[in-house]
Amino acid sequence: MEYEEPKFFHVMASVAEADRDVVDMVSGNPDWEPPQALRDGLAEYAEFDSDRFQYPPSDGTAELKAEIGRRRNVDPNRIVVTNGTGEANYLGMGAALERDAGDEVVLSDPVYPYYPGKARMLGGDPTFVPANRDGSLDVDAYRETISAATALVVLTTPNNPTGAVYDLDKVREIVELCEATDAVVLVDEVYDHFDLSGEFESALTIDSEHCVVTSGFSKSLAVTGFRVGYGVFPEQFVRQAKARHMLVNVATTGPGQYAVLQGLRGADAAYYEAVRELIRERVDSFTDALDAAGAEYTRPDGAFYIMAKFDGFPGTMANVERLIDEAGVAGMPGDGFGNAYEDWLRFALVTPRVEEAANRLVEFFE
Amino acid sequence: MEYEEPKFFHVMASVAEADRDVVDMVSGNPDWEPPQALRDGLAEYAEFDSDRFQYPPSDGTAELKAEIGRRRNVDPNRIVVTNGTGEANYLGMGAALERDAGDEVVLSDPVYPYYPGKARMLGGDPTFVPANRDGSLDVDAYRETISAATALVVLTTPNNPTGAVYDLDKVREIVELCEATDAVVLVDEVYDHFDLSGEFESALTIDSEHCVVTSGFSKSLAVTGFRVGYGVFPEQFVRQAKARHMLVNVATTGPGQYAVLQGLRGADAAYYEAVRELIRERVDSFTDALDAAGAEYTRPDGAFYIMAKFDGFPGTMANVERLIDEAGVAGMPGDGFGNAYEDWLRFALVTPRVEEAANRLVEFFE
Repeated sequence: MEYEEPKFFHVMASVAEADRDVVDMVSGNPDWEPPQALRDGLAEYAEFDSDRFQYPPSDGTAELKAEIGRRRNVDPNRIVVTNGTGEANYLGMGAALERDAGDEVVLSDPVYPYYPGKARMLGGDPTFVPANRDGSLDVDAYRETISAATALVVLTTPNNPTGAVYDLDKVREIVELCEATDAVVLVDEVYDHFDLSGEFESALTIDSEHCVVTSGFSKSLAVTGFRVGYGVFPEQFVRQAKARHMLVNVATTGPGQYAVLQGLRGADAAYYEAVRELIRERVDSFTDALDAAGAEYTRPDGAFYIMAKFDGFPGTMANVERLIDEAGVAGMPGDGFGNAYEDWLRFALVTPRVEEAANRLVEFFE
Repeated sequence: MEYEEPKFFHVMASVAEADRDVVDMVSGNPDWEPPQALRDGLAEYAEFDSDRFQYPPSDGTAELKAEIGRRRNVDPNRIVVTNGTGEANYLGMGAALERDAGDEVVLSDPVYPYYPGKARMLGGDPTFVPANRDGSLDVDAYRETISAATALVVLTTPNNPTGAVYDLDKVREIVELCEATDAVVLVDEVYDHFDLSGEFESALTIDSEHCVVTSGFSKSLAVTGFRVGYGVFPEQFVRQAKARHMLVNVATTGPGQYAVLQGLRGADAAYYEAVRELIRERVDSFTDALDAAGAEYTRPDGAFYIMAKFDGFPGTMANVERLIDEAGVAGMPGDGFGNAYEDWLRFALVTPRVEEAANRLVEFFE
């Protein structure tokens, strides 16, 4: 089996090897603080009786599942707490593909680079449906693509890398297409707290046995390294998802689950809104610079990425490396996300030096 | 795909539902303290700058890999730090099975109940080779079984449930058989610190491109819920193991990796020896009771389980439930581990109430 390594490992190595100061706009690691309650929870955990250090229930602690269930308005029995949203996506894709109901996995172009590798590892065969230029769902294109051979459709909203927030009616239409052909829709909502538009609606409100929703706390609580996410599975997949989770991981981290639970309880609406406001400011300052540099770009409705296209400077790996060495700004080559944006570059707005990077880009391109 | 749920979930439910006090000898959760340095490490982590809360390197932090490499005398580049030994076993089995070099997975009987499910999930077809009555490896039986159809042989030493510590020469013979047929040997050494015999030698000393060794800190540092283990892969599998790990889990818990690193550094030889001494004492008091009850039993050379057979009281699920309700002692039915010990019961010595359980059994069977 051949896996393609996401290209950001290559880019990160170039950043590490650069002779100069580089603003890293490659990774999706939040650079802001988690809620204090999350830190307190971890410190508290360190003092617990050692029986609390042993296996949590395989599908997650009862307290965390109840808290998620209450917040998302779903039955906790449908929830599997996972080693990050990445594992939740793996479980959902596994459940869809192990049914002998087709091998085709319909992904969007542009695509989050882990999905094709996961799909292939699970025996799936990826097909790509281009997004509309504004990043929105082209439902007609999905209608033409989805067939009896389709096992799974993966959607991401808010979207990485386009920043699109999908219209829930369109998501529902795709779910209905999948119900008709016995396919599954997996909706990855890991950026659910980064809706800058106020328009995001979760696919959890769609009542369908063909819809899996995943999310997690890596981004929303700024702890990508803690590894706590979750999947919400329809009744027909709960047992398989729990079995696969148990067989692969037994359980995800107990200390992480407890810290996240305390973080969830401690973070008020103002915590999330302050982070969104920070990202909005960064969007403004970065797009001002892109205007000044004469670039075309996407203005995100959600998540925290910007795609930009510089005239005569396509987003190839060679140009990414030139930008690292000559401008001191690292982005991701667009072809890391498929064909749709292969001339573009993706910049992650998770550095306090967004403005510095913007200035460097203006200077480089002037 | 159908997975068989390990039977201990059923037994644990019976324990929870029992009307009386029950000594739980079912789970493999250490009941002793982790090293203080591990607790201190976790508390320290809670105070780190939030950039330390983000994704660790996918295959593990450089510090933890270096520490493991130094202790196990292997190149850190061959190590993948995983979400517990369970994930390391999954990665090793995946690497062996994705080569198109046969589907057969040779397991021992008795077997740790997660292996057959993992093997089937990965497309493998389990075959069982009975252990010798004393738990040791019957190399001739492996020689008869291993063929071109064999993808993988899984060995566990010290063994759960038999308590056997394998003779390294026999392990080496099996590795050589696998080299000849292009199969892989996965040696799970998660109980490596629980060698009561002084005879254990790690398969890491076998220099072979066909040998994967897994272990972890769940048992040795008494933190099954932290989820930190590792696999040591031969050169030919390092890339696939890292890719699968990245695609399934991205990385394992950062706080857990740091706490375990501090625990490793803080635990001296006396820490491990004190735990072994505790287990030896429990073995003595429990086997004294088994003698008094007229039971046949295995005396473990390693790990912390005892298999026992009571005359006229086969280890069926019905009898396990009777023992819970009438004696107040919970063990595992022997048929949860295959056919070899289906009349037996497995008792885990990880409760401070081993002596109480022993007295209850004597009373019940007298």
